[in-house]
Amino acid sequence: MRILVVGGVAAGAGAATKARRTDENAEVVIFEKGPYVSFANCGLPYYVGGSIPDRDDLILVSPELFKERFNIDVRLGCEVVSVDAENKTIHVNTPVGQSDEKYDKLILAMGGEPIKPPIPGIGLDGVYNVFTVPDAEQIVKMLSAGAKSAVVVGGGFIGIETAEGLAQRGIKTTLVEAQDQLLNNFDPEFSLPVEEELKHIGVKIVLGGAVKEIIAGENGRVAAVKVGRKKIKTDMVIMAVGVKPRLTLAKSAGVEIGKAGGIVVDAGMRTNIADIYAAGDIVESVHLVSHKKVRIPLAGSANKQGRIAGCNAAGGNMLFKGVLGTAIIKAGGLACGRTGLNEKECAAQGLDYDTTYLYTNSSATYYPGADSMIIKVVYEKITGRLLGAQVMGRKGVDKRIDVYSTALYGGMSVFDLENLDLAYAPPFASAKDPVIMSGMVASNAVRGVCKTVSPTKAPELAKQPDTVLLDVRTRGEYEAGALDGAVNLPVDELRDRLGELDKSKKYLIYCGVGYRAYLACRILMQKGFDVYNVSGGYWTSVMDLSE
Amino acid sequence: MRILVVGGVAAGAGAATKARRTDENAEVVIFEKGPYVSFANCGLPYYVGGSIPDRDDLILVSPELFKERFNIDVRLGCEVVSVDAENKTIHVNTPVGQSDEKYDKLILAMGGEPIKPPIPGIGLDGVYNVFTVPDAEQIVKMLSAGAKSAVVVGGGFIGIETAEGLAQRGIKTTLVEAQDQLLNNFDPEFSLPVEEELKHIGVKIVLGGAVKEIIAGENGRVAAVKVGRKKIKTDMVIMAVGVKPRLTLAKSAGVEIGKAGGIVVDAGMRTNIADIYAAGDIVESVHLVSHKKVRIPLAGSANKQGRIAGCNAAGGNMLFKGVLGTAIIKAGGLACGRTGLNEKECAAQGLDYDTTYLYTNSSATYYPGADSMIIKVVYEKITGRLLGAQVMGRKGVDKRIDVYSTALYGGMSVFDLENLDLAYAPPFASAKDPVIMSGMVASNAVRGVCKTVSPTKAPELAKQPDTVLLDVRTRGEYEAGALDGAVNLPVDELRDRLGELDKSKKYLIYCGVGYRAYLACRILMQKGFDVYNVSGGYWTSVMDLSE
Repeated sequence: MRILVVGGVAAGAGAATKARRTDENAEVVIFEKGPYVSFANCGLPYYVGGSIPDRDDLILVSPELFKERFNIDVRLGCEVVSVDAENKTIHVNTPVGQSDEKYDKLILAMGGEPIKPPIPGIGLDGVYNVFTVPDAEQIVKMLSAGAKSAVVVGGGFIGIETAEGLAQRGIKTTLVEAQDQLLNNFDPEFSLPVEEELKHIGVKIVLGGAVKEIIAGENGRVAAVKVGRKKIKTDMVIMAVGVKPRLTLAKSAGVEIGKAGGIVVDAGMRTNIADIYAAGDIVESVHLVSHKKVRIPLAGSANKQGRIAGCNAAGGNMLFKGVLGTAIIKAGGLACGRTGLNEKECAAQGLDYDTTYLYTNSSATYYPGADSMIIKVVYEKITGRLLGAQVMGRKGVDKRIDVYSTALYGGMSVFDLENLDLAYAPPFASAKDPVIMSGMVASNAVRGVCKTVSPTKAPELAKQPDTVLLDVRTRGEYEAGALDGAVNLPVDELRDRLGELDKSKKYLIYCGVGYRAYLACRILMQKGFDVYNVSGGYWTSVMDLSE
Repeated sequence: MRILVVGGVAAGAGAATKARRTDENAEVVIFEKGPYVSFANCGLPYYVGGSIPDRDDLILVSPELFKERFNIDVRLGCEVVSVDAENKTIHVNTPVGQSDEKYDKLILAMGGEPIKPPIPGIGLDGVYNVFTVPDAEQIVKMLSAGAKSAVVVGGGFIGIETAEGLAQRGIKTTLVEAQDQLLNNFDPEFSLPVEEELKHIGVKIVLGGAVKEIIAGENGRVAAVKVGRKKIKTDMVIMAVGVKPRLTLAKSAGVEIGKAGGIVVDAGMRTNIADIYAAGDIVESVHLVSHKKVRIPLAGSANKQGRIAGCNAAGGNMLFKGVLGTAIIKAGGLACGRTGLNEKECAAQGLDYDTTYLYTNSSATYYPGADSMIIKVVYEKITGRLLGAQVMGRKGVDKRIDVYSTALYGGMSVFDLENLDLAYAPPFASAKDPVIMSGMVASNAVRGVCKTVSPTKAPELAKQPDTVLLDVRTRGEYEAGALDGAVNLPVDELRDRLGELDKSKKYLIYCGVGYRAYLACRILMQKGFDVYNVSGGYWTSVMDLSE
């Protein structure tokens, strides 16, 4: 049995080692185009930023260890250029010439490559990616050589992590994003706190700014970037506008490419071609909420898929269950996590959804160290089926995202969330954990106990005729800052002042975080008023997570 | 509609406010025996320890706010002494004499009371509980008056939290536990790291030590505690040996008490007596894993049950789903969490279970700040159904427990765990999160890919005839410390030295954390050897989580 693996990072390395564990007698070979296998892609921005100082820490398993421990032959600098599926042979460009290699089973794990938009000057010296170890080494070398400024293009995970790292090194850093928001895989209202956080650590942010040109200086190297009509001087440009799958090789083998732009595989990671498997960033997976095919290139899935492909290629039988697009990023002191579908995705898919916002604390407020947190839950309007969640804050964000993700995996509803038995002690959570609270609020909405409106929609809705924006906080809170056009009637005076309200009007009610407004809604509903709770309250409306 | 609530802490306060939100027109009255309602029980040890310095922070909702905001009448110092269910009347001892109160709906939420074992001297001045605000105030007063030493009796959550707090205040603290382990709701092997941690912060630990007598000094106050044959001098004794439900009142009403020692309720928190509801520490619930009735007094369940009882008493219709016994404690820098059934409970219930240990890191090892963590997962041997999990470490313990708990709620198996799509970025997790890893290891065991033995059983099993304890770490690691009787054969030399092994023997194989032993098992299994991986490896065997 000869198992060949193309690509030696997350999926490829995992496939090869699992193949070995599954069949001790197979011959297993990894072909890797680059100079390293099994390195920590996700660590590269932190190496650039200096929080991982030693490059060697990024190498998880060396070729020597692959040989010694796994009896796996790693061939570096070897690019597989085509597959002859009929003759079960691959053609390889090696450092010493061409070579043909026969296989019994072939595992494709080429991963992606950075998108290189057709911008004039993109080929200049001083334009880098953060995709491979040599990429990161080049940047670190430039920093050591005295680079003082950088433009990072792309406001996604890698762009933000890199910009943060550079700013922390004292580099004058500008983050340029063509869209109107950072973190495009989040709903837009999550962008502002991240922008503020990055500004706070010294990153300049340019949104809605497509890069028109990268301009060379007299030495022929990068000197400036043209964004709209602005020219930003810079010593280097770091491109982080995304990654596309490497599919040329798969196509040469006749492997089917799906509508989501990745290789079509079954749950055992088998392609349409006999004895060819695929895993990682190049494949499509089933989304466990939408049940549509998606291509979401993330390390967690790549690792799982590689393991399964390797097992099955070597004669085992494992199945990949699907993805939820769960992801998290640290941006300064903020953590931003997401899982399942966000509101944009639900809207694009025409789902009948509703949203709940929660502005709450990471743990019991009376215990020192609790910090504020914003949660947005999206659920099916009629059934309450959980569709997705986004969480942002300084503490415990990863925990809540993982709970939502596990609930999504289990097909749970918001009614399940309110019943979860989560761990409580004052240092870790509240007796009603934020996830449970979000379930209670959303369940109340589904049950009709309290109608809600989204804080992103409330300002517009409040402008409708016969609509009143009612602030039920104290006078002091109201005077310190309130939503435009809101009138104040503190909840604790509501029962005595019902006569001041008008049953012919619609009331959009808000407080600080949504709880007092909920109480007000319950009082007024039962008195015959048409009332809506502005979900998450004033603080969610202003999305303030500053320290 | 007149709704009376007996007890005003977690379940009672939640029931009353939910009743109000459900029915704005009902009359809602809380009768509370003590001087406070809606206080944070779980915060009391932290108030004693000084990390919550202001007593007022423990009061969540004052009687005034109950009136103003919820139109709820709070009657402090009012003990309900009996219920006449036929006439729907309760008899109350008030500060100004007896009173009879009619109800339409009655909600029982009396909670528990500290167990007072019949120890000579238990009534002495200087013997305290940590159960009410006045309890905590008394202790703090004693500390201010110059108390220098304390004996805390009971090594459960409250005992440990209180002992830690006292030690941090510089009090010479001894923690006495009658059993042979701390944290009796964990498996015994989790005790040692907690003992070490508490010793490290200055708490003296006495295990297996029943308190025989509390001895008075010349002033008539506590002066010493007799534990076995030892006498420990002390300025105060804090009793934290557990809590029993307050059931006298319920019995007076004819309410049914179940075999688990709590009030029998349906999922709507209704007792067997019409119009009487019960919630919180006094009721039995269905355990979502064992599906047996249990009484697990915890704040999370009390809050949820109170809300449901209040809703239903006021005409709503909500259901309580059950409990998992999820709990967590901070012990110094360690966090210890549990959910579902532990091994002791599975054994006591005669379940056909198996266990997986994982000694792993809280996040990507190459990113600064990762810390070690021990996970024990218990699952059904044949099916892989998850039965419970225990996690201990310094970082990210609460997250993993909540993921396991959510998985248990969803009835998931270890095969689901290995497929979860959890959030990964280097600051938060590994690409294969510890929970996913535990699922992979356990799934491998269920699938027969790798047989495992528990590290707690390995030393005994290794003494069987024809059994070899094989250490596959490097010579250096082996020489620095190994299990008794182990022979060394590094995994990387295994393929070349197979001839040194004997197919007639049984090999118990271990490495540092279980991974290399797994590789060794896979190699040897396929070569015809009878091999077992010592789950979790050397580090789990020695349970070392020291800093």
